[in-house]
Amino acid sequence: MTPKNHEGVGIVATKTALVCVPPDELNLQSGRILGPIEVSYETYGTLDAEKSNAILVCHALSGDSHAAGFYSDDDTRPGWWDAMIGPGRPLDTDKFFVICQNVLGSCRGTTGPASVNPRSKKRFGMKFPVITIRDMVDVQARLLDQLGIAQLACVIGGSMGGMQALEWAVRYPERVRSIMPISTTGASSPLCIGFNHICRSAIMADPNWRGGDYYESGEPPADGLAIARMVGHITFMSDKSMRRKFGRKISGREGIYAFTAQYDVERYLYYNGYNFPKRFDANSYLYLTKALDAFDLSDGFPGGVEEALSRIKARCRFVTFTSDWLYHPEDTEELVAIMEKRGQHAEHFCIKSDYGHDAFLVEHHLLAPIVRDFVASQQRRV
Amino acid sequence: MTPKNHEGVGIVATKTALVCVPPDELNLQSGRILGPIEVSYETYGTLDAEKSNAILVCHALSGDSHAAGFYSDDDTRPGWWDAMIGPGRPLDTDKFFVICQNVLGSCRGTTGPASVNPRSKKRFGMKFPVITIRDMVDVQARLLDQLGIAQLACVIGGSMGGMQALEWAVRYPERVRSIMPISTTGASSPLCIGFNHICRSAIMADPNWRGGDYYESGEPPADGLAIARMVGHITFMSDKSMRRKFGRKISGREGIYAFTAQYDVERYLYYNGYNFPKRFDANSYLYLTKALDAFDLSDGFPGGVEEALSRIKARCRFVTFTSDWLYHPEDTEELVAIMEKRGQHAEHFCIKSDYGHDAFLVEHHLLAPIVRDFVASQQRRV
Repeated sequence: MTPKNHEGVGIVATKTALVCVPPDELNLQSGRILGPIEVSYETYGTLDAEKSNAILVCHALSGDSHAAGFYSDDDTRPGWWDAMIGPGRPLDTDKFFVICQNVLGSCRGTTGPASVNPRSKKRFGMKFPVITIRDMVDVQARLLDQLGIAQLACVIGGSMGGMQALEWAVRYPERVRSIMPISTTGASSPLCIGFNHICRSAIMADPNWRGGDYYESGEPPADGLAIARMVGHITFMSDKSMRRKFGRKISGREGIYAFTAQYDVERYLYYNGYNFPKRFDANSYLYLTKALDAFDLSDGFPGGVEEALSRIKARCRFVTFTSDWLYHPEDTEELVAIMEKRGQHAEHFCIKSDYGHDAFLVEHHLLAPIVRDFVASQQRRV
Repeated sequence: MTPKNHEGVGIVATKTALVCVPPDELNLQSGRILGPIEVSYETYGTLDAEKSNAILVCHALSGDSHAAGFYSDDDTRPGWWDAMIGPGRPLDTDKFFVICQNVLGSCRGTTGPASVNPRSKKRFGMKFPVITIRDMVDVQARLLDQLGIAQLACVIGGSMGGMQALEWAVRYPERVRSIMPISTTGASSPLCIGFNHICRSAIMADPNWRGGDYYESGEPPADGLAIARMVGHITFMSDKSMRRKFGRKISGREGIYAFTAQYDVERYLYYNGYNFPKRFDANSYLYLTKALDAFDLSDGFPGGVEEALSRIKARCRFVTFTSDWLYHPEDTEELVAIMEKRGQHAEHFCIKSDYGHDAFLVEHHLLAPIVRDFVASQQRRV
């Protein structure tokens, strides 16, 4: 697939906005104040006159604002959800104005720990405030304010993106007509927190991490971040998909009795692990996993998750995949059951798939009809 | 429980033997030769005149030969399977002579990478040969030769210990009347290999590892080994058991917005992770996980696992636990199905439990009757 015969959104450019500019800084959930905040974002399609056809796509942990299209004619790698976004695609850019923003705390254009603190003129590093999914959503809302978009037709995303969709519906019930949280949960489980703890431990134990002040050293904590990414990759797959993809294949049978020998699964993890530091900042990984761990919809609601969910006015279509052992379908089912009991609009599509947590980025043909149908119904009939 | 009112095997002492003494060195599966090999072991009960009542207990990755009893009157921590071994207990020392040996490659008394190479007078470090489950079993057989034990009533063990039980039955069909492989598999899956790869990466990335030559430095790669152990601990539990044990509890609510804040699951992982290097050698962890990865019963059999299993003459009782996601009950069921088809004696008890892979060390009350009944039937009627 190259841009020339690409039937999607074609060539795109990433934009930048400045939000939360003093004196309108963002009040973070932690009580700290942050601003100005630079936001990297992309848009596909055309905003209608009523500004009522906007869809917000929320990315996962290692994602960014480049959800669709190519950067140039020579670019061979489309955005991370290209299969879902474009003319005639499930998020149909002939009808909708699709926005994807890089989240707060990330390192792909939006302000995060690798950014220069405008006050000190130095990189934030670990002086960056701890942020939450709610803070990410608040920043997204500020950009929408700037674009004049009062209400979203839909907020959609998988994994950490699904948490944002849920947070949107709870925090801004009047601003979202529908949400589609995919492969996500209402609160991070101890299993997820445990894995994230291991990831952070690996990064922080890397001597190149230097307490987060590695930016000037020219040596980022690549080993630590690579190990963190390997942990991530295993949790994104499933036992079955790994057996199918790797089996017990090994390169060079003679190598079995040497530590240099690599089973295919090891080579895959190594390759993906060590590629990651080339495009991702280790401190951002610390902050974003921390935000994942802290995520709990019930936070701040004396009535718990029931009270949080009761605020939702949006129509909700949840999607999960059977083999996702990081964010179990059962967790989603609990949320749906609560909402159904209250008479709220909540549907749950649990898709049979062996691809584990990764499925929402892999099983496009299964996800597409469920997205297309739901999103189409969110077009405002004026 | 203290030794004084302990109704188990009481005070025990670890013994040492020297096996594979030149010119009778061990021919390792790798083709290399190793010897002499020191073996640390414990025995409980009395060997009968016919030497026919011996049971071999095989330990898991981080275990050792101290399976039962206490070292002294002041000792408050019994051996790792004390609940299963003793007078009247499932492995009944009134009837059986129970032996537990620390495996080759470990660091708890048996020769491993931390041992001094008698030729060079230096610690082996990474010059230690890569060893396999088969090599471990061969060393165990050599000690039994020394003790004059021609045949075992039973070989029993969980996880890596279960692999040894299987290997015993395949490699020495005439020497084992029965085996009881618990929570194990016939071949390590890519999921297991992947996790082990991460563990090894963490150890080897630790600057204190120094290519394995850290023994004289006084600074072992504690960070790397702690991270490896944390990975292990998560994979030993289950999503459910972690939710029950930890939930989302956090120490100090005010700490949620700081990296110093620790959810209970994080404190558990940290505590257990960093305690581990106090008693375990990082290089041993490399070698033993490598042995786990290489484990494949079919290895060396052109007819595959069917041919390997066809060699077994022992009665086999397999035990698994429903929530064990590291060594699925399904894997064991495959082995059992093959053996049943061939008319071999193979039973499979799949125990419902939320404790994951750890269950065989936790759910004594569920495991005990299954062990007791099977082992009792292996007493030789002379």
